[in-house]
Amino acid sequence: MSVYVVGHKNPDTDSVTSAIAYAELKKATGTDAVAVMQGELNPETRMVLDKFGFSAPEIMTDATGKQVILVDHSDIAQAPDNLDKGEVVEIIDHHKIGDVTTNNPIFFCAKPVGCTGTVLKQLYEINNVAIPEKVAGLMLCAIISDTVLFKSPTTTDADKAACEELAKIAGVSDMQALAMEMFKAKSAVDGVPAKDLIFRDYKDFDMNGNKVGCGQLELVDLSLVENIRDDLYNAMKEVKEEGGRHTVLLMLTDIMKEGTDLMVVSDDPSYVEKAYNVKVDGQSVWVDGMMSRKKQTIPPLQEAFGC
Amino acid sequence: MSVYVVGHKNPDTDSVTSAIAYAELKKATGTDAVAVMQGELNPETRMVLDKFGFSAPEIMTDATGKQVILVDHSDIAQAPDNLDKGEVVEIIDHHKIGDVTTNNPIFFCAKPVGCTGTVLKQLYEINNVAIPEKVAGLMLCAIISDTVLFKSPTTTDADKAACEELAKIAGVSDMQALAMEMFKAKSAVDGVPAKDLIFRDYKDFDMNGNKVGCGQLELVDLSLVENIRDDLYNAMKEVKEEGGRHTVLLMLTDIMKEGTDLMVVSDDPSYVEKAYNVKVDGQSVWVDGMMSRKKQTIPPLQEAFGC
Repeated sequence: MSVYVVGHKNPDTDSVTSAIAYAELKKATGTDAVAVMQGELNPETRMVLDKFGFSAPEIMTDATGKQVILVDHSDIAQAPDNLDKGEVVEIIDHHKIGDVTTNNPIFFCAKPVGCTGTVLKQLYEINNVAIPEKVAGLMLCAIISDTVLFKSPTTTDADKAACEELAKIAGVSDMQALAMEMFKAKSAVDGVPAKDLIFRDYKDFDMNGNKVGCGQLELVDLSLVENIRDDLYNAMKEVKEEGGRHTVLLMLTDIMKEGTDLMVVSDDPSYVEKAYNVKVDGQSVWVDGMMSRKKQTIPPLQEAFGC
Repeated sequence: MSVYVVGHKNPDTDSVTSAIAYAELKKATGTDAVAVMQGELNPETRMVLDKFGFSAPEIMTDATGKQVILVDHSDIAQAPDNLDKGEVVEIIDHHKIGDVTTNNPIFFCAKPVGCTGTVLKQLYEINNVAIPEKVAGLMLCAIISDTVLFKSPTTTDADKAACEELAKIAGVSDMQALAMEMFKAKSAVDGVPAKDLIFRDYKDFDMNGNKVGCGQLELVDLSLVENIRDDLYNAMKEVKEEGGRHTVLLMLTDIMKEGTDLMVVSDDPSYVEKAYNVKVDGQSVWVDGMMSRKKQTIPPLQEAFGC
């Protein structure tokens, strides 16, 4: 019986490539393992698989009757459905320890590093298995993705060291260029309707009785949206009117410059100005260092609204 | 602030020695770690610490405000009290995955081997830290204890290999002799009143309206109780009469020969004879392979009683 190696729901590059890379390691050490995933590939992951010559893993969303190895998560809610009707036989992760329990002793290896790919790099070493060139490419991309090329505060020296070695194995001479290629794939906006871009990653909040919406686009370069700024702004106005919203924000986050050009449509922009100590002049305002909606954008605005 | 390394409640040799051995490894890699335990030493563990020149770790039963590393368990019920008011910063184990969760990524290393000592042996290697001679002695004893010198079905090749190397480091030339010394310490009966021995590890069961009691003594050699058999038998008769019991059993389990000399005091020994397909002739009967009260002694007897 095959063992299925699977990452979390809404798969990202680390989840998909770690399933592939760990299935390869299991096969190299004598276990019949198959990499699967729980949903469709995102544009970045698709680019990464294409680049190193892999096809998309099969989709598997139900663990009933199956032996599974969880990678990149240890939470029941993130795992395939009916996990209790299957059997978790291993867990490899780099997140906080979740609520998956087992009836038997298993191999559980979690480390506080920036990426599951970094843990896998070490497991290949411990098992004395050479990492195949193309698999090294996938693992490298996973670390670049999870650490935003070492810009994320979750980055550790182990992640950087792993990337150095993986780049050599994969024959990647310019890690920066690879990262840019990935980030560009991730920030693709061409041909997508403006309103879809607003709602790509969007949340509404109630702020002291006022409905405030906030979308975010993570971009490798703000020039990517230069030609559609007016379309976005007009779509934001529509979204504001349709939903009876007080304010609609769209974070155009420059992941390389580490800041956000914050587009604002509001009945009263003074709340936004107070929240981030800026002056909104025109469609948007640059807020240096703003990367996280959850941690940096919403709390000060809630405070400004007196929540 | 020190990090406290702690095994499970009712500490055994693996829990106590693993706390010591892992605290040593943490100190060797730059972390201020202190080994603690949650209760008094049992006779075997006391002998092991004495033999290799260690004093008993301090007792710590409350995790409030403390950073803790859990060894040999990952269950909240087995951990120090108020674990949610402290912080679990690492887990090293060889049991099924328990219900401890964390708010941050941590190092969690569990392996399906016979003993936490075996996992620690590998962690010393991965960290390129030489195991101190006396610490190697403790780790060796932990593996001998948990695997009953490789007789337990939980034993893996990794446990055997670890013991080979640890014995060399510790300067232990005769592992069998060390195991016997430990098992003798564990099976000490000298000077203990017969009734206390019956109740040392004892449970009552209701079998179809009949009260049936069963005690167990794990012994390295049945000769240890040769001179007190009559005392034990008379005490069993007392226990039977006092409690209005139908049957009282005392398992004299020979952990080396892997069987039990089953002492029987009963209104009707035919139930016992039927349960184990034996003939009770005198005070006791040998039942080959009987090691576990829970798995091997009680279920057939319940069946014989028509439960």
